[in-house]
Amino acid sequence: MARLVLKFGGTSVADLERIHRVARHVKREADAGHEVAVVVSAMAGKTNELVNWVNRMPQVAGANASFYDAREYDAIVASGEQVTAGLLAIALQSMGVDARSWLGWQIPLRTDNAHGAARIDAVDGADIVERMGRGQVAVVAGFQGVAPDNRIATLGRGGSDTSAVALAAGIEADRCDIYTDVDGVYTTDPRMVPNARRLDRVSFEEMLELASLGAKVLQVRSVELAMAHGVRLFVRSSFDEPDQIDSSDGATPPGTLICSEDEIMEQQNVTGIAYARDEAQISLRRVADKPGVAAAVFGPLADARVNVDMIVQNISEDGTVTDMTFTVPDADLEKARSVLESSRDEIGYEVAQSDPGMVKVSVVGVGMRSHAGVAATAFKALADKGVNIRAITTSEIKISILIDSDYAELAVRALHSVYGLDKEQAA
Amino acid sequence: MARLVLKFGGTSVADLERIHRVARHVKREADAGHEVAVVVSAMAGKTNELVNWVNRMPQVAGANASFYDAREYDAIVASGEQVTAGLLAIALQSMGVDARSWLGWQIPLRTDNAHGAARIDAVDGADIVERMGRGQVAVVAGFQGVAPDNRIATLGRGGSDTSAVALAAGIEADRCDIYTDVDGVYTTDPRMVPNARRLDRVSFEEMLELASLGAKVLQVRSVELAMAHGVRLFVRSSFDEPDQIDSSDGATPPGTLICSEDEIMEQQNVTGIAYARDEAQISLRRVADKPGVAAAVFGPLADARVNVDMIVQNISEDGTVTDMTFTVPDADLEKARSVLESSRDEIGYEVAQSDPGMVKVSVVGVGMRSHAGVAATAFKALADKGVNIRAITTSEIKISILIDSDYAELAVRALHSVYGLDKEQAA
Repeated sequence: MARLVLKFGGTSVADLERIHRVARHVKREADAGHEVAVVVSAMAGKTNELVNWVNRMPQVAGANASFYDAREYDAIVASGEQVTAGLLAIALQSMGVDARSWLGWQIPLRTDNAHGAARIDAVDGADIVERMGRGQVAVVAGFQGVAPDNRIATLGRGGSDTSAVALAAGIEADRCDIYTDVDGVYTTDPRMVPNARRLDRVSFEEMLELASLGAKVLQVRSVELAMAHGVRLFVRSSFDEPDQIDSSDGATPPGTLICSEDEIMEQQNVTGIAYARDEAQISLRRVADKPGVAAAVFGPLADARVNVDMIVQNISEDGTVTDMTFTVPDADLEKARSVLESSRDEIGYEVAQSDPGMVKVSVVGVGMRSHAGVAATAFKALADKGVNIRAITTSEIKISILIDSDYAELAVRALHSVYGLDKEQAA
Repeated sequence: MARLVLKFGGTSVADLERIHRVARHVKREADAGHEVAVVVSAMAGKTNELVNWVNRMPQVAGANASFYDAREYDAIVASGEQVTAGLLAIALQSMGVDARSWLGWQIPLRTDNAHGAARIDAVDGADIVERMGRGQVAVVAGFQGVAPDNRIATLGRGGSDTSAVALAAGIEADRCDIYTDVDGVYTTDPRMVPNARRLDRVSFEEMLELASLGAKVLQVRSVELAMAHGVRLFVRSSFDEPDQIDSSDGATPPGTLICSEDEIMEQQNVTGIAYARDEAQISLRRVADKPGVAAAVFGPLADARVNVDMIVQNISEDGTVTDMTFTVPDADLEKARSVLESSRDEIGYEVAQSDPGMVKVSVVGVGMRSHAGVAATAFKALADKGVNIRAITTSEIKISILIDSDYAELAVRALHSVYGLDKEQAA
């Protein structure tokens, strides 16, 4: 017997038939003797409809700008999850499963006052735990909590993952199952590399790098929260036939467990290869090498809300000028160039080069901390294929390499193969 | 300066353009210096969509019956008003009017635990009154409150009128304006009698009779609540051009005020003529005239949920048998007949006659309490036109007469005229 949180997204609850399918997943877990809480998103399309109304209302009311009060946005948009939670509770009851819906303010799931993108402060799981003990399934409206002003606060788009993790922490769940349209986390994108294989276990740290680097299975934020609270995440498929999965204790249904490193016995050097397209590279040449120059470059970019990713700066040869390379999303390139142009005198660079259409390929693995030569292996593999490296950054558990997008498939496949991640070579 | 509650129904807030129109009505009142709270329904059609989902969910989930948990119904259906309240608050803010939305649990508007058809126990208006004092408009989601179990409770269909009256009582409003698709309460149905005229004032008691007798301007329940708490109701048109109405103190915008009798100076004998179509008459002949016989007749009908309206029983000539006549909706006639047939032995009647397609015409007026001859005038007017009276019931302030539906227009027009209600004859 385990205490579980199950989370289903908007496409999984898009209509009554799919809500019934979700209910069958839930019933299976309850029938297996587990204590179950479910977190649901709004029916697919509903959130967009509501957000669209919020965005249009000011203009319809004659305002020049589309300013709106985030507290009203929250009250309006959170209604979507409220509907799904109620419908799923009814579906479960109709199938003989004791269940009730919970809204954010009823739990309560307390947030800060940052309406529209609130952070979770505390989850009081006492009522839910007590009812779970009596066999009742808790169906929780995701994406929402109650702020100190006693008004509904939403967690920002995609916040249902975060709700689920926070709830799992609040009720001390043994596991938080994220049902998605993929059946787990892969060594790389299976659409690009047919030999990619599903990972049984990934550490939180690796998942953070994989998530933020383009493996869009989980929100970065929810993984951070899971890591902070030690919530074991299990990524699994909502397409699996609900009644054909063994959910008893000790069974291993298909999926990927995201957990702390000490739960992973044999740590591979490299766990996966991630990539992110549509990066643009900007290089400033002969920047004065003096204190404050990085702030002079990146301060104005941040003010303009340009999202800077890789940053590479070499030590200058003579201590007077240096080169500085960084990447921004392709979509932000023009804005970044004009910001740099207008602060050229302050920064004092000579040439600004920029190239759109780059790809960042990243090798991720906690094992590389204790194994030398991981980076060298990557560089050699790319050199063997004739792939030119434009920039390199490294962290403790990843190496990111910027290359021309034409070489993306070639590079990812080569790296996937050289680190022994291909299916055939799996143990 | 007055403290006002304005109530707008679903067709008034059916889309963003109409919500803007409502906002213009609200802004006019706020600009005139009044303290304003607004109660809104769900956008037209939304409640039906949500109710339909609730009704279908159990079957989709494989249940035989369409049972559903009323607490979940409430959580789902109340979301409609939540959306409208938020959108209206945004519209008002966009027009420079300070406003915020209030959900039932935030006020709080406390109800009993009868989910799906809850009764209001108490409205705590303190927060709203305090914010009104600072010039903020309160936009309240109608139709909902919070039950003792800390879950959303809805007041039943059409409950937004009741919300508005309860709020008006809770914040001690000077007036509760009900914006509808008619511009007030008329002496009778203007579609039937072109000479019908709008009443400036109607007493609560009269409005109760008019509402329950087929003048569908206001819910009976909201009028009862208004009477109990002395809330002055003002029925007015949501189609009036918002910016062309004088809302200053002392102005008299078009509409009908429903108030206590002592606010009405010159009380007419008769205030209005109501009618209800599709009544069926059932007569039991030679019923044993003994204690318990009425219970034997109407108990089984009530158990079968047949809605009995007029009941007429004469004293029997010899104390042994009597005739009993009553009306039910046409739609319930067959059910009523079979109920009576199966309890024939217990009741002990000889002949049961029934006639569908009757009309009940009612003459209403508090003035008739102090004026003799009101009933006689009605009977003479109908006799002059050759209208046959099938049954008569009276209360302190109304006379109801059952006639064949072919004579409905003729009878209503004759009564409207004979009591001096026609437009030309108005003072």
